[in-house]
Amino acid sequence: MEHPSVEEVSLQQLLEALVDPVRRAVVSQLARARGEMSCGTFDVQVSRSTLTHHFNVLREAGVIRQYYVGTTKMNALRVDEMEERFPGLLSALVAAGRLEADA
Amino acid sequence: MEHPSVEEVSLQQLLEALVDPVRRAVVSQLARARGEMSCGTFDVQVSRSTLTHHFNVLREAGVIRQYYVGTTKMNALRVDEMEERFPGLLSALVAAGRLEADA
Repeated sequence: MEHPSVEEVSLQQLLEALVDPVRRAVVSQLARARGEMSCGTFDVQVSRSTLTHHFNVLREAGVIRQYYVGTTKMNALRVDEMEERFPGLLSALVAAGRLEADA
Repeated sequence: MEHPSVEEVSLQQLLEALVDPVRRAVVSQLARARGEMSCGTFDVQVSRSTLTHHFNVLREAGVIRQYYVGTTKMNALRVDEMEERFPGLLSALVAAGRLEADA
């Protein structure tokens, strides 16, 4: 699978990825998991093919890394790289989502 | 002019406002100005009526406050309120935009 360098990702592309509520839910769940999650374990109300599309958008925007462990596709947030590219942005977004979920 | 309480603004609404590059340019210029700017002084390549629409979206998302000084319509970022609502988010976005502009 192709992964962009975070340097290639524009703020516009990142925001277009994260303006979608399902994609933000994926990011929030990955942040809560503090690690990796396989594709089938996300709690989202969309079909498998729609979710695959959302993973692709997030991967192309540099937000997640996808890789196989055996035959299972795993997803992980590229937290440190994103922090270096756009300091504070991803963490503020995750925190904002958590604030709203807890409200 | 109507201004929402920032508590009424959802993360979704805020991101839909800020995903637009012209609206982010408005926010960046206000942040650089560290204060207020009248509607006619923004450096953006859109018509006056389009810009008015963008101001409306930003005002309805709680990002800017608009008010008249005499007959001049002024705009100011609601930085402190936004910081309280979604800590770190607006400042990280402004910083990210600046990073890109300087790159």
